Amino acid sequence: MNEDQLYAMRHSLAHITAQAVQHLWPEAKFGVGPVVENGFYYDIDLGDVKISEDDFKKIEKEMRAIINKDYPFERTEKPIDEALTWAKDAKQPYKVELLNDLKREGTTLASELDAAMMGMELPAGIGGSPHVELKSVVDVSFYTDGDFTDLCRGPHAESTGKVGAFKLMRVAGAYWRGNEKNPQMQRLYGVAFATQEELDAHLTMLEEAKKRDHRKLGKELDLYTTSNLVGSGLPMFTPRGTVLRDKAAALSNQLREQRGFQKVWTPHITKKELYEASGHWAKFGDELFLVKSQETSDEMALKPMNCPHHTQIFASQPRSYKDMPLRFLETTTDYRDEKTGELGGLNRVRSLTQDDSHVFCRPDQIEEEVNGLMASANELYAGLGMKLRVRLSYRDNSDAYLGDQSLWESAQQQLKAAVVANKIEFFEQEGEAAFYGPKIDFMATDAIGREHQLATVQLDFVQPERFGLEYAGSDGSMERPVMVHSALLGSIERFLSVFIEHTGGWFPFWIAPEQVRILTINDTVLDYVNEITTVLSDTVSMKPVKYNEVRFTTDDRNESLGKKIREATAMKIPVQLIVGPKDKESREVSVRTQAGEEKVGLDRLEEYLKAL
Amino acid sequence: MNEDQLYAMRHSLAHITAQAVQHLWPEAKFGVGPVVENGFYYDIDLGDVKISEDDFKKIEKEMRAIINKDYPFERTEKPIDEALTWAKDAKQPYKVELLNDLKREGTTLASELDAAMMGMELPAGIGGSPHVELKSVVDVSFYTDGDFTDLCRGPHAESTGKVGAFKLMRVAGAYWRGNEKNPQMQRLYGVAFATQEELDAHLTMLEEAKKRDHRKLGKELDLYTTSNLVGSGLPMFTPRGTVLRDKAAALSNQLREQRGFQKVWTPHITKKELYEASGHWAKFGDELFLVKSQETSDEMALKPMNCPHHTQIFASQPRSYKDMPLRFLETTTDYRDEKTGELGGLNRVRSLTQDDSHVFCRPDQIEEEVNGLMASANELYAGLGMKLRVRLSYRDNSDAYLGDQSLWESAQQQLKAAVVANKIEFFEQEGEAAFYGPKIDFMATDAIGREHQLATVQLDFVQPERFGLEYAGSDGSMERPVMVHSALLGSIERFLSVFIEHTGGWFPFWIAPEQVRILTINDTVLDYVNEITTVLSDTVSMKPVKYNEVRFTTDDRNESLGKKIREATAMKIPVQLIVGPKDKESREVSVRTQAGEEKVGLDRLEEYLKAL
Repeated sequence: MNEDQLYAMRHSLAHITAQAVQHLWPEAKFGVGPVVENGFYYDIDLGDVKISEDDFKKIEKEMRAIINKDYPFERTEKPIDEALTWAKDAKQPYKVELLNDLKREGTTLASELDAAMMGMELPAGIGGSPHVELKSVVDVSFYTDGDFTDLCRGPHAESTGKVGAFKLMRVAGAYWRGNEKNPQMQRLYGVAFATQEELDAHLTMLEEAKKRDHRKLGKELDLYTTSNLVGSGLPMFTPRGTVLRDKAAALSNQLREQRGFQKVWTPHITKKELYEASGHWAKFGDELFLVKSQETSDEMALKPMNCPHHTQIFASQPRSYKDMPLRFLETTTDYRDEKTGELGGLNRVRSLTQDDSHVFCRPDQIEEEVNGLMASANELYAGLGMKLRVRLSYRDNSDAYLGDQSLWESAQQQLKAAVVANKIEFFEQEGEAAFYGPKIDFMATDAIGREHQLATVQLDFVQPERFGLEYAGSDGSMERPVMVHSALLGSIERFLSVFIEHTGGWFPFWIAPEQVRILTINDTVLDYVNEITTVLSDTVSMKPVKYNEVRFTTDDRNESLGKKIREATAMKIPVQLIVGPKDKESREVSVRTQAGEEKVGLDRLEEYLKAL
Repeated sequence: MNEDQLYAMRHSLAHITAQAVQHLWPEAKFGVGPVVENGFYYDIDLGDVKISEDDFKKIEKEMRAIINKDYPFERTEKPIDEALTWAKDAKQPYKVELLNDLKREGTTLASELDAAMMGMELPAGIGGSPHVELKSVVDVSFYTDGDFTDLCRGPHAESTGKVGAFKLMRVAGAYWRGNEKNPQMQRLYGVAFATQEELDAHLTMLEEAKKRDHRKLGKELDLYTTSNLVGSGLPMFTPRGTVLRDKAAALSNQLREQRGFQKVWTPHITKKELYEASGHWAKFGDELFLVKSQETSDEMALKPMNCPHHTQIFASQPRSYKDMPLRFLETTTDYRDEKTGELGGLNRVRSLTQDDSHVFCRPDQIEEEVNGLMASANELYAGLGMKLRVRLSYRDNSDAYLGDQSLWESAQQQLKAAVVANKIEFFEQEGEAAFYGPKIDFMATDAIGREHQLATVQLDFVQPERFGLEYAGSDGSMERPVMVHSALLGSIERFLSVFIEHTGGWFPFWIAPEQVRILTINDTVLDYVNEITTVLSDTVSMKPVKYNEVRFTTDDRNESLGKKIREATAMKIPVQLIVGPKDKESREVSVRTQAGEEKVGLDRLEEYLKAL
């Protein structure tokens, strides 16, 4: 089954859900019922009746009855005024409102939201390009299956019998059209797949994802905390969580420093003049945290990105073609003023620390620079145990892009050549470039099959122009550099939300906050424990991140071994060294890892740990 | 000569300066003439006449004439109304104003500034305690030497012949009483010492300081830059300057991590509620950068310090006496809204990165914790080549201090014991403690004899109380921890301003941004240069900071060796490896350092560099 068929199937299930609800509660008023990732929902107004999860069985039973009838989905069209009459007769006020809006605004700009609400299929790319104009609406289409008819653009499955496997998942309040001044409806969500096996796999994945939820693990493993006094979206990292941050950033930086990147440092605030020069003020001014100086008249902002600051370091010295490329690297925190309702855990935060870098290069150096960044990303995600694929985002033929056309073409070719050279799975998409240059987005797949966009490499022809950056060419004439923006982890906070769930908290040895815990069986081994800790103190791992001293603790409390093991395992300590009188006598330790338990001689322990 | 005598001597020179100016420009109106560090000044209104440095010779000549007359300084007193008559008769409007103010406000609170302006000796400690009330002024004192009389509290030298060695240094505009709405006067500065030798040494030091000015070296050595678009007091660090920042911080952190400190991470902003809870909002609210969220109603601020954030990490878990001490470390940037007029170079900035740490400990653990911090500071400044001494700041008997008296006494004893144990030169000062606890301030002496306060260790009995921090004691009752604030470098930016001037840009090998530059004599050695760079790439120093890979470049341009050496020396590269055909043949390199030039065999190069 292809994506289009899956879409039609899920959309049909939205209709069947509404149909079943109508059978059970004939007074139901319907909003919209779009397809979403992995499934569908329908917004329903049932007045004072509240659907609960206890009702799902009954609704699903009615849905199955409709499916078993195998009603064909039949399309009809009506002029819009007839459609309005239909909606009024059917006592569906939300449909009346939609049709009235469509009648009034059908020939003007239609937002993605309104289009989605109509259940209409969107023209490809409408998400990325808000300037698509819908054609004048003359006729409106309806789909009917059995006793249920709905205003709908389609497409649908052939009949209700051909909708695969589904499950209702949850019901939640949702304001009509997302506006809190409108009535609150009940949004009934379901998931759906072509086969029962795929559905089961998805449900298993969801169960697994729940167990791995980084907010839950963040608390259990003492990785970060939040405080009402500090504010939402502003997590604070405990010693354990800070190890994760620091080691991940160290690896990302190390891989680039090997390739000639140099660290720079810039402040977290700036006068707004910097963003007026870059153009960000006009575009994103209302998404920034504004900073007010009480001592001066400076109008300032917290930086939401670092490129404008880095241009000022480039511009601080005269540069020659021989100096190029200049590669600046900075792990620094940017601030974005997200709505607090959208904040949760580490996935979306207001303080995002980026492992950011900017290359300033000659146009003929793009391929080599991108090549180095690709190789760094490849090594990084291999070190993290995640599979990568990339999207190459090119311009299309519209005039929405800035910069010279031939520069774009050469740059796009160089990007692709770098991706091919690095043997990374890729796909290409026209029209997905940023207005300032083409880009590569990296998608990493986690242990339970979810794909996350983390790293990015973006070319920029615009900022060098706006800041008047230049270097002396070989003939002495002044040339304009190209900028290559890149972050390999992306936002470290968001990366950690993915990585914690990817590993389920069982972090690879090199990055685990507490790598080794010694668990004593009784106090007769304390002198031997001293010998073990001497070995651990001298053990330094060099891979994948360099100069990584072993982080260990000793649990020599007067508690049972069983309790000590349970606690160490609850904290997901990757290496537990159990030490009893027999181990002391044989000069061994009992090493307990997720792979099982084995005896390791004390003289081999360093070597053993370095190989993990 | 003791400090009091030096003070009297410098103050007498201020009078002599005014007297000389009055001889040369009889219409001169005088403001105030206080003693400042190393000298004195007098504020003078000469109407349209502008004093320039060209006039210094003439003024100094007249001053010497007055000195040669050896006039005694004679003290007289007048009731304040008679004094006013004198000032009016003398056509000294600024003195009239001062006397009127004194008459009006003499029995109320007098600020330090007004007192200084009167030339009055300040009661000890008035700087730290604004609540000292001056006694009602009935009589005002005057000092007369020869033909010059000035309103003055004294004390003075015995006679004009006993004022040591002096030199006028500069003249600058200064608003009367520091208020820009008042007339602008001319402030004539001089330096003065007991002997000509001391004066000469001071002048030599100033010359040397000028050469070492970190703003000059910062530019010449490409260490940092500023931008009008970003704003004043917000330096950006180039790759070279970032090496200095990172290595200094790495050493500071490493020394503490060895002693059980763990890194944490907190955001740069917070809701103001955090500072309302800590008490900082009421005290320092108008010195903060305010942050405005456009998406939420949060009222926020940029953090000017990190302790309140760190309390929230402490408070995020239940703690027991067995968990104590908890030692948090964070190198992070704080923001303070300084007036732009006060900003210059790295000495005073609006973005200050602190190598901050907070220990949460039991009261009986203070000595051991302070001991560890003292040892870390000692090692750090030894690594940086700077001599330390400390001031122990205790409470006095006033009621300006919060926290239990017996806790203070025990804490002060523990602080002193830690200082004594570390064999650091110290002095003690009562009344210099912060209101929240006693403290230790570290003074580091630089290469030209200037003393700078950098590191600090402060006890805090108040914040744990305000945030309700607690741990379960051994008997199960809840106890309150003590906080130990500490920064070893202090502000890294300010530290660098000192360190750059201390070293004059010739940084110790381990921290030098570019440690080694290979200078080729001609192209026949390029293959040999490859062998050398292989050695350099494999060389890793472990002292004083761990895992420090060698930072090197190669200058193989087709330029003369002389030019290459001049450029490398201008950039103060500590190790220059000169490589010519003879070196290649003997498998040596000619190592050029500040100590001279010597031949080192290639097989000994790694060892040689590690010993630097």
